[in-house]
Amino acid sequence: MSDVVSIDLNADLGEGFGRWRLTDDESLLQSVTSANVACGFHAGDPAIMRGVCAGAAARGVAIGAQVSYRDLAGFGRRSMDVPTDELAAEVAYQIGALEIFAAAAGAHVAYVKPHGALYNRIVRDEVQARAVVEGVLLAARATGRELPILGLPGAAVLRVAAAAGIPVVTEAFADRAYRPDGTLVPRPEPRSVVKDPAAVVARAVAIATGGSITAYDGSEIRVEAQSLCVHGDTPGAAAIAADVRTALAEAGVAVRPFVTTADAR
Amino acid sequence: MSDVVSIDLNADLGEGFGRWRLTDDESLLQSVTSANVACGFHAGDPAIMRGVCAGAAARGVAIGAQVSYRDLAGFGRRSMDVPTDELAAEVAYQIGALEIFAAAAGAHVAYVKPHGALYNRIVRDEVQARAVVEGVLLAARATGRELPILGLPGAAVLRVAAAAGIPVVTEAFADRAYRPDGTLVPRPEPRSVVKDPAAVVARAVAIATGGSITAYDGSEIRVEAQSLCVHGDTPGAAAIAADVRTALAEAGVAVRPFVTTADAR
Amino acid sequence: MSDVVSIDLNADLGEGFGRWRLTDDESLLQSVTSANVACGFHAGDPAIMRGVCAGAAARGVAIGAQVSYRDLAGFGRRSMDVPTDELAAEVAYQIGALEIFAAAAGAHVAYVKPHGALYNRIVRDEVQARAVVEGVLLAARATGRELPILGLPGAAVLRVAAAAGIPVVTEAFADRAYRPDGTLVPRPEPRSVVKDPAAVVARAVAIATGGSITAYDGSEIRVEAQSLCVHGDTPGAAAIAADVRTALAEAGVAVRPFVTTADAR
Amino acid sequence: MSDVVSIDLNADLGEGFGRWRLTDDESLLQSVTSANVACGFHAGDPAIMRGVCAGAAARGVAIGAQVSYRDLAGFGRRSMDVPTDELAAEVAYQIGALEIFAAAAGAHVAYVKPHGALYNRIVRDEVQARAVVEGVLLAARATGRELPILGLPGAAVLRVAAAAGIPVVTEAFADRAYRPDGTLVPRPEPRSVVKDPAAVVARAVAIATGGSITAYDGSEIRVEAQSLCVHGDTPGAAAIAADVRTALAEAGVAVRPFVTTADAR
Repeated sequence: MSDVVSIDLNADLGEGFGRWRLTDDESLLQSVTSANVACGFHAGDPAIMRGVCAGAAARGVAIGAQVSYRDLAGFGRRSMDVPTDELAAEVAYQIGALEIFAAAAGAHVAYVKPHGALYNRIVRDEVQARAVVEGVLLAARATGRELPILGLPGAAVLRVAAAAGIPVVTEAFADRAYRPDGTLVPRPEPRSVVKDPAAVVARAVAIATGGSITAYDGSEIRVEAQSLCVHGDTPGAAAIAADVRTALAEAGVAVRPFVTTADAR
Repeated sequence: MSDVVSIDLNADLGEGFGRWRLTDDESLLQSVTSANVACGFHAGDPAIMRGVCAGAAARGVAIGAQVSYRDLAGFGRRSMDVPTDELAAEVAYQIGALEIFAAAAGAHVAYVKPHGALYNRIVRDEVQARAVVEGVLLAARATGRELPILGLPGAAVLRVAAAAGIPVVTEAFADRAYRPDGTLVPRPEPRSVVKDPAAVVARAVAIATGGSITAYDGSEIRVEAQSLCVHGDTPGAAAIAADVRTALAEAGVAVRPFVTTADAR
Repeated sequence: MSDVVSIDLNADLGEGFGRWRLTDDESLLQSVTSANVACGFHAGDPAIMRGVCAGAAARGVAIGAQVSYRDLAGFGRRSMDVPTDELAAEVAYQIGALEIFAAAAGAHVAYVKPHGALYNRIVRDEVQARAVVEGVLLAARATGRELPILGLPGAAVLRVAAAAGIPVVTEAFADRAYRPDGTLVPRPEPRSVVKDPAAVVARAVAIATGGSITAYDGSEIRVEAQSLCVHGDTPGAAAIAADVRTALAEAGVAVRPFVTTADAR
Repeated sequence: MSDVVSIDLNADLGEGFGRWRLTDDESLLQSVTSANVACGFHAGDPAIMRGVCAGAAARGVAIGAQVSYRDLAGFGRRSMDVPTDELAAEVAYQIGALEIFAAAAGAHVAYVKPHGALYNRIVRDEVQARAVVEGVLLAARATGRELPILGLPGAAVLRVAAAAGIPVVTEAFADRAYRPDGTLVPRPEPRSVVKDPAAVVARAVAIATGGSITAYDGSEIRVEAQSLCVHGDTPGAAAIAADVRTALAEAGVAVRPFVTTADAR
């Protein structure tokens, strides 16, 4: 790797289902370098998945499997006590379904990012974290390629994954409030989400360039991450993603898909 | 190929879902040479799929994707007017999901067999037949391997598939009544299913050895097929499958997975 | 009834699911007099249904059960061969689920309007029409109240319903193109939908006041109906509905829920 | 009420879905006095619900709504963090759907029994307990009748329900191991389920007649309950239920639906 400061920009895509749409996939694909594609369990139907994979492959955007609990009605935001063998198989199933569309488009599933309640749960729940890792390992063995897991710094799932030989990638959130210890302020709390677009852009640049951001209590903290997550499911999301990308470029940051240690060897 | 008379024996497996079971997968795997594995749309959940793939791979049983309309409540037996782009993507999605478990077990999805109402519909519906073929082609391109389609002799889907360069395999049913023209007597009709196990076994041997079977009207007909389908979802199904296999062996028929022209080259 | 010209204005409401929204329910409730509420099979989750029923009851808007095939992925637009006993039970199930929210809000399910592919299919399919009528009769027997069916003039379901003693209500579409014989131009055809808001409003007034509208071929036809359907699932739908209501009022048409013969006695 | 010792016998019924069956509904209806009918969220489709309600009504068996998390794949056994407004609405939706079939059969939903993970969760989770109670209250208001909740003695949901004016009914399990404090040994633990049919029958009679049963640690305890739950989803379940009923009759216990205080006034 060169000395150029670089960062990956990821967002959730393909979060429609049937007649419904949520994310502005076309616009987001012009800004992000990694697309977390919904795989049908919380959102995403086969036709949408196929279209997003084709668009991502055409633009060189990395395709990630945004695996979730089986919960369309709750959009994957309901934490669930899924037995580990079932959870592992559900994770692999979703990766496999997405891989067919990624590969048909000339690409591959490049990483896995758990979604919603599953993402949050395996920050601490070692049992479910191991189940997710088992599912990812199964898929990696099946496809013969490494499948890095993208997650929150310090998350149990990243520790378990690393111990199992899976590359891990950390992410930061430009539009979420942080506690002084670098953890996120939970969503239900007031001011957990940064809504001012200018502030989001400024925080993105700060994180990417190693600067500090203001935590929830007013203190200044540093957040290290290989990828920046911009949300795709809010009004104006695509515009903010575009602004973040432009600002990063102006700040001299190369925006490109993350490179895992294994790939870089 | 040698002069030994041979035939493939296929059955539907993995047709449970969650708490429910239908097929006696363990027993069937001891008799069949090809397992049509439900992929989650009419039956089959990820944990079941994983288990069936592991069992099939361990026994050298070929794994087929039993793709279906999205219809758990109707078990895939409700014919549906699915737009072609959605149907094609749904077919590919199911194949991809199954492939991850097949490949993790050291095998691959070796063929595709549409299920239930979809199977019957694309005997005549050229539009849906082309959608299914498009989905299979997409999956074949993604995996880099041929994916033969298993179907009814004369079915539109086999013509469309052959024209698109997809290998096709025909099957016959030892437990279904035939009309004099070689087509099946539709299920709702009385005596459409042969229920006497001894008769099923005798018909299986007749079909495999090129003999004649008695059609619905009492006439004698010949039915040619590369595979014999034995049903797995009826009481006693596994026992009948075992009897068929034994009788075929005693008749000097080699029971083994079908070999497509392309593979035999 | 008085000599005042009156008409009912109906629209589809509550067509979101979980995280997704489609219809602007709040705005539509200010314009329509009858709300066709999705019941969970093509759209509509329990929380949405509860909210729409509360809003409709508070404004005196009649609540209708918008029953559908079980098809979330296809938004109820995939025609399905559902066995009649299953279809009848599915229709009753949906009505029952909605009735609990309607009754809790101090109202009742006042009518039934089949949705999407089911609506279109039972224009001609007598078998499914009878199944729907059976389901409605079951629900009417259960609730002890009449449940009129809202449908297309001349539809098989209305004939079957009338023969079974169920009140029927006909509707016209201000934003759909008509053939000279008074039937609708099918949606996939070009110009099947009238997109100019002013034209939609003018046609609504013409239909309500017994005037003529221009058919697809340029001829002038008269369309009689007790209810006017305005679509709720397109951008600007709520604004058009408001414009239609205003124009009807200005034309001296009383906009109010339809009254069936039985109720008027 | 008379001095005759009486008890209610309840079991889960209608736990099939589409092509799948689990419970032997016909046989169970001959033994139980209360049928907990699955309402479509963990099991139970509209046609099954209709059939079970008709059978129960014909035999004078009380119909209960066996409400569940929305979890077909996990059979309602996956505890879920459902937001309270969604959970309340989901509970009411299920009751409403069942009521239409109960009422069409000449009966009514007579009580509510939460299923599986939801049942276990609201033993302690006050927040979800309140949501369930809110859903039951909504349904009671809608139908104009009381809807008792059947649950575990000491469960939070029963406390919350009683405080809200909802009648509560307690149940005991003849086939489950108890701790000395009268709580159940959790299912995953060894010997949590009593498998010897004769022991199940003896414990049923002991509980119904106020005798003692042997707890997990060998101590003798008394378990008071107005209803006895016999499981319906295990092989031989219907036979055990019949044996329990016969043994209770022989012991002079009147087996009949529970009567709540309000009804008895």
